[in-house]
Amino acid sequence: MPLLVMKFGGTSVADLDRIKNAAQKVKREVERGYDVIVIVSAMSGKTNELVGWVEKTSPLFDAREYDAVVASGENVTAGLMALTLQEMDVPARSWQGWQVPINTTAAHSSARFVDIPRANIDAKFAEGFKVAVVAGFQGVSPEGRVTTLGRGGSDTTAVAFAAAFAAERCDIYTDVDGIYTTDPRITSKARKLERIAFEEMLELASLGAKVLQTRSVELAMRYKVKLRVLSSFEDTDENSGTLVCDEDDIMESKVVSGVAFSREEAKITLFTIEDRPGVASSIFGPLADAGINVDMIVQNISEKDYDEAHPGAVTDMTFSCPINQVARARKALEDAKTADLINYDELIIDEDVAKVSVVGIGMRSHAGVAARMFKALSQENVNIKVISTSEIKISVLIDRKYMELAVQALHDAFELEKA
Amino acid sequence: MPLLVMKFGGTSVADLDRIKNAAQKVKREVERGYDVIVIVSAMSGKTNELVGWVEKTSPLFDAREYDAVVASGENVTAGLMALTLQEMDVPARSWQGWQVPINTTAAHSSARFVDIPRANIDAKFAEGFKVAVVAGFQGVSPEGRVTTLGRGGSDTTAVAFAAAFAAERCDIYTDVDGIYTTDPRITSKARKLERIAFEEMLELASLGAKVLQTRSVELAMRYKVKLRVLSSFEDTDENSGTLVCDEDDIMESKVVSGVAFSREEAKITLFTIEDRPGVASSIFGPLADAGINVDMIVQNISEKDYDEAHPGAVTDMTFSCPINQVARARKALEDAKTADLINYDELIIDEDVAKVSVVGIGMRSHAGVAARMFKALSQENVNIKVISTSEIKISVLIDRKYMELAVQALHDAFELEKA
Repeated sequence: MPLLVMKFGGTSVADLDRIKNAAQKVKREVERGYDVIVIVSAMSGKTNELVGWVEKTSPLFDAREYDAVVASGENVTAGLMALTLQEMDVPARSWQGWQVPINTTAAHSSARFVDIPRANIDAKFAEGFKVAVVAGFQGVSPEGRVTTLGRGGSDTTAVAFAAAFAAERCDIYTDVDGIYTTDPRITSKARKLERIAFEEMLELASLGAKVLQTRSVELAMRYKVKLRVLSSFEDTDENSGTLVCDEDDIMESKVVSGVAFSREEAKITLFTIEDRPGVASSIFGPLADAGINVDMIVQNISEKDYDEAHPGAVTDMTFSCPINQVARARKALEDAKTADLINYDELIIDEDVAKVSVVGIGMRSHAGVAARMFKALSQENVNIKVISTSEIKISVLIDRKYMELAVQALHDAFELEKA
Repeated sequence: MPLLVMKFGGTSVADLDRIKNAAQKVKREVERGYDVIVIVSAMSGKTNELVGWVEKTSPLFDAREYDAVVASGENVTAGLMALTLQEMDVPARSWQGWQVPINTTAAHSSARFVDIPRANIDAKFAEGFKVAVVAGFQGVSPEGRVTTLGRGGSDTTAVAFAAAFAAERCDIYTDVDGIYTTDPRITSKARKLERIAFEEMLELASLGAKVLQTRSVELAMRYKVKLRVLSSFEDTDENSGTLVCDEDDIMESKVVSGVAFSREEAKITLFTIEDRPGVASSIFGPLADAGINVDMIVQNISEKDYDEAHPGAVTDMTFSCPINQVARARKALEDAKTADLINYDELIIDEDVAKVSVVGIGMRSHAGVAARMFKALSQENVNIKVISTSEIKISVLIDRKYMELAVQALHDAFELEKA
């Protein structure tokens, strides 16, 4: 029997009516001849309520108890979904993590899968059950305690089940109807993609297109699980949404698939530091210890002339980080200077920047993408402050006020409105 | 190490402040040198919310899914209680039913204990944990599915753990401060009992003193578990509340320990039925099938004279049942008559009655209790409609409007205000 995994997030199961709506989508696939594993999140708001209680009870909580409390939200949805399916005459039962069992590491609140044995669920399919409703986001540790995978973990549960059960596809039902070339709120020319490669999706996810949890895409890429993102709130068929798949499954890909952006960036520059081996690690070590998510890093030769106070070679170091981490980053750097771990003349922080990126696996085989990008920005008089490139992505930091203009210009320049 | 079981009901853990208050009571017992097993209910209101969702989703629900959903409320409280104790430097962890495991039958929503192996919890006590916080009301079936014991089942969980772990005592913290000779709202002379025998408590519980679930008292009686009922909301010490115990542990008991009552009763009389073997079963069979909780049953010779229409011996049959079951009872009896299963001339229903009972193990060795009771009622001109007696209880049905008067008169007659 072919098998599908279908995942419904918190807004898709927010109340009994929405659970019924989701169940109808499951029933349709059963009628098409599939066995279905449904992965459910907690009803929206429930996980936050539980987390709130835990944090209020114990600011430095025991993560084992946190997990025991917080995982209960998914158990509720799983039972309600099974009941809803039964009411529609679809033979279904719910599964809690320990019942499958979903074996994970003991790293509570950020556990990783160890294995998902198929025997128990397969036995129920063999008995005539058509649907296994599995509580997402949770598992069981080697010690037999409830674990959770960290927030957003239900996507990862879905992909892990699709891999373990060799599912034909893993459908992620959410509150958007697919992956777009860019955010439609920025330009009405944004177009829904029919297909996108795993690598592109990873770049888009980490850049702010928060449709899929990054870890779930990584896992899907490793096990070649076809992921489909589609809407819970629209009528959908087998062609709806966006398929996230191996690049081999994409016939002809454009050079650039999408334009991503991140508004809440800050740029920090240390002027006149020694240019010697180990200086980068002496800067980024303290930042890592302070939990700063450093993103782009650029080192460039200082424009300043050699002077008496700094007899060695000098350089400048620039990096970006989320704007809400600036205060902590400044403190970490100033403390490191006080402790004589690093030395710099000046610390300049620019909190008015945004990051814009073009992403596409086609870049690998096409020259001139960067030039085309810079030209498009230059024609709009957008000044580029920092550039950083990877194999399938080119990112720039620019003044925040030009962000929307830049996204629109790049969307036009790479003709993303055309299929 | 001596061990205590402490149980906190829904109102005692209704919010984080109350959980903290309950945790302080647990900490006090740990400081006195006890290992403690804490049994918790769901935060008040939560179980009703979950039950409401299940019933709305599926009126004829699959009890296995009902249990999976509804048991989650206790898991939340167990985790929060463990965290609260940890914050007070008391080494504690939570236990869900399947983790202990609490093995039950597969009779979902009304499961019964099979066994509670001590090994897992004992191992944690040996490691230095002082408190095991166990989710009440739940267990796990032989098939590995979550079960529940039925509403109010957390009391039963507490007693079962006290029996399994040979606890010194099982303390039931609730919203009243003990068991009274009668409801203090009826007479200000009502007095809190220091001790009460299991048998007396069973009669009081089933008669409306809803402090302890009947099954928990039965279980405590069978395993001779000392049960103490005391208030969550007052300062308590080792002499607080009421001890429910074996009658051998009660030095000197009064003839009557308490006056119980039930307001919502109805009396149903079938006039002129055949007086032959099997007639009772032909009446009460259909009532049982209709789910009627028949309570008192009295058969008396009909006052009517022999007549032509009924050549055999005739009798009347009277019984009582909860007032909200009268319509169903009437239908069952009329249907049985139509189907010629029973025959009667007339069906008289009196919906204005109440039941008043005096309860006491001392009755066994004292004559004249009934006479004293009837005299007290007669002095107040309360007419007795039906009488029923057991070894330790005498019950009467009377007009509902005299119920409070009767309770007060009996409380005085048996001098229950005196210790």
